[in-house]
Amino acid sequence: MQKSQQAACDKLLSRVSRHSLGAVLARMKGFQYLTPIDVARQKLFDALQIKKLKVASVALNLALNRVLAEDVVAQEDLPRFNRSAVDGYALRAQDSEEASQFKPKIFKITDGKVVRGRAKQIWTGNPLPEGADAVVMLEDTKRIGDQVEVWAALRPFENVSKRGEDVARGETAVRAGTRLKPHHLGMLNALGLTQVKVYAKPKIAIIATGNELIEPGVKPQANQIFESNRTALSALCSELGSEPLDFGIAKDNVEEISKKIRTAIKKADIVITTGGTSTGASDLVPEAVNRNGKPGVIVHGIAMRPAMPTALAVVDGKPVLILSGNPVAAIMGFEVFARPLISRLLGLKREEPRPWIKAKTTRKMAAALGRKTFVRVRVVEKEGEFLAEPVSAKGSGLISTMTKANGYVVVPENCEGLGEGEVVTVFLFDNIEAC
Amino acid sequence: MQKSQQAACDKLLSRVSRHSLGAVLARMKGFQYLTPIDVARQKLFDALQIKKLKVASVALNLALNRVLAEDVVAQEDLPRFNRSAVDGYALRAQDSEEASQFKPKIFKITDGKVVRGRAKQIWTGNPLPEGADAVVMLEDTKRIGDQVEVWAALRPFENVSKRGEDVARGETAVRAGTRLKPHHLGMLNALGLTQVKVYAKPKIAIIATGNELIEPGVKPQANQIFESNRTALSALCSELGSEPLDFGIAKDNVEEISKKIRTAIKKADIVITTGGTSTGASDLVPEAVNRNGKPGVIVHGIAMRPAMPTALAVVDGKPVLILSGNPVAAIMGFEVFARPLISRLLGLKREEPRPWIKAKTTRKMAAALGRKTFVRVRVVEKEGEFLAEPVSAKGSGLISTMTKANGYVVVPENCEGLGEGEVVTVFLFDNIEAC
Repeated sequence: MQKSQQAACDKLLSRVSRHSLGAVLARMKGFQYLTPIDVARQKLFDALQIKKLKVASVALNLALNRVLAEDVVAQEDLPRFNRSAVDGYALRAQDSEEASQFKPKIFKITDGKVVRGRAKQIWTGNPLPEGADAVVMLEDTKRIGDQVEVWAALRPFENVSKRGEDVARGETAVRAGTRLKPHHLGMLNALGLTQVKVYAKPKIAIIATGNELIEPGVKPQANQIFESNRTALSALCSELGSEPLDFGIAKDNVEEISKKIRTAIKKADIVITTGGTSTGASDLVPEAVNRNGKPGVIVHGIAMRPAMPTALAVVDGKPVLILSGNPVAAIMGFEVFARPLISRLLGLKREEPRPWIKAKTTRKMAAALGRKTFVRVRVVEKEGEFLAEPVSAKGSGLISTMTKANGYVVVPENCEGLGEGEVVTVFLFDNIEAC
Repeated sequence: MQKSQQAACDKLLSRVSRHSLGAVLARMKGFQYLTPIDVARQKLFDALQIKKLKVASVALNLALNRVLAEDVVAQEDLPRFNRSAVDGYALRAQDSEEASQFKPKIFKITDGKVVRGRAKQIWTGNPLPEGADAVVMLEDTKRIGDQVEVWAALRPFENVSKRGEDVARGETAVRAGTRLKPHHLGMLNALGLTQVKVYAKPKIAIIATGNELIEPGVKPQANQIFESNRTALSALCSELGSEPLDFGIAKDNVEEISKKIRTAIKKADIVITTGGTSTGASDLVPEAVNRNGKPGVIVHGIAMRPAMPTALAVVDGKPVLILSGNPVAAIMGFEVFARPLISRLLGLKREEPRPWIKAKTTRKMAAALGRKTFVRVRVVEKEGEFLAEPVSAKGSGLISTMTKANGYVVVPENCEGLGEGEVVTVFLFDNIEAC
């Protein structure tokens, strides 16, 4: 928090009469100081006792996007033998010296060992026959009966994939902590593996809270709202290779919320709640978390917009992320705190960044001084240039600000906003369309 | 193909004696002319009869990355009622005129309808009570018994999420052809939906060919190679939301390959083969495809490196992609031809691009004149700058050129390569690590 804000806050508190101070303090609990994102993250990580996830052996065809739990060391050379990289004739490179289209060398075709002046027909992938050390491409030859004209001079091992050239025996082919992509699976398969050891998927319990919430699909009463955060957050969990556990909706009742949190902490590696973390009378989640053990809530109120009311807690060494109930704030809270946490749990070497690009803003964007502002933008490609159109400066309750956008810009704390035509970094959460 | 190459090719052919011309032509079948990628793609699309995929209704929690098959139109306003965006007091904006910290206005607390001079306590998300048109934030008030001091002047609908502000009734909330991301699922859920209509996953049959190939997991004989392309290509299919069908390995036997292709065409929307598409005697796949119907192979030999021997065919209106057996060439052939095809089948508005960035090359990269060259690079971030290190200029047989890389640069046909320190576009297939 900036000094000026602290002063304003002090001034505000000084106006509060003695009899209501307690209530106001309670309502403002956690918001007298807004913790910068980086500090909040560090506090959370410092308070955790991250247990290594279990290791499971899975079939390669089920291992996409899983995280490798051990270095895979090649047990054999790949390729296991010198093999031809082309279709042609295997021969001794030295015998082709000075051969050219205008001065071909003549080789005798052999079916056996390659000795001086002999060549053996060979196809891509075939092992290099004994005695040969190079392959001349078919296009550089002319077959005449049991002889072949060679029109090119070859260097030793030209057109040959040498034994161990791809991966040598004993070399680490894929490292522990690698998120397995299609080419990694191909590599592991080429080494002869069919199973691979990966970390278990981190389990993430998701609890929504709020008396006003009902499950979609039923007929709502006048003041009821369809609960949608569990679906969005579960999908975000799945995208990152973790397993969401649906803990349903809790009413605004400390006992009920606390009980759900207790079960969730036992069953999951991370607990996420939504709602009940603001300053209202019904904002009971931090208290419900604290009932479950120490240290409980360690940060409440983050210097960001949206998602300011986010709180971070640790119980039994496990992280509890207390997110806002507003759909955009819940997603951005997940983005900022759950993503790096999942990377950490999975033993990834580095937080997996979203793809990002540079784009030019099409108009001004307002931001909140003293807080990191996440402005949703719609990036379009126009004549080879990326343009970023801010979708809305307001409305963390408006999920349409995300469905209309495909990325966000992070405006720093010390900045009132961004100007028109400024080049900014956009983190993409969806595809870019052509204009 | 460049004119100079055509001349060289003509010269080469002129050297071929009459008796072997037929054989050479057969061997070079399709390679007398290398088709540019864009032309090849267009020929393929023109020859297809793309049938619409079936539409299935799936639960929202299973709909991540599926493609929406119909516009979703909001049946109700979202929010369904004017609701408070903050914790505070609902009142009539006009009654707060000129209120400030120094000149508060006093309101009487009510539990019922809000009339002139009355305010009703309200929490975030609550419906705006009858008569009120704004909400003053708790922080801008002071409660004194059954009265409240208001320290701020409000505009009409300040701190209110207006009915239909997020999505108005009758508005299209998510369009057909949208790949469903977490925020789309959240939106659909917020509208009260629990099921959604999506396109069936395109089925992609994958057939590997080659006498030298064996399944990983068994003990290889001297000249055998573990088949790994089916695993890598299946994973690529899964990433794009299609369903791979494993058709195993076929021996280099036209009859066997042809039979597998026949079944594959019946069961799948796209058929992919690997191997047997070069110029060797055992390269039988194009012939095997042609046995299954017209038009059969329409392009053979693409002006690209790797993956030059790729062939494209259409049988029964369905695409058959005949990819090289070299692991990198197979993956790049998939990248260039299968990705846009899957987008097209799924009814996506636009091919989904890989994320891309601009990076500075760390050294020269050789390229093949007359062909689009896909150079694998490892991008690292160093002091805020992206550096692209070419992994290897050669070796489409070396899968390690992909596991060591995280992206590729496309060098155009008319370019011999790229210089050191040049700024290039890198398409990313894996994460960037910090240096």
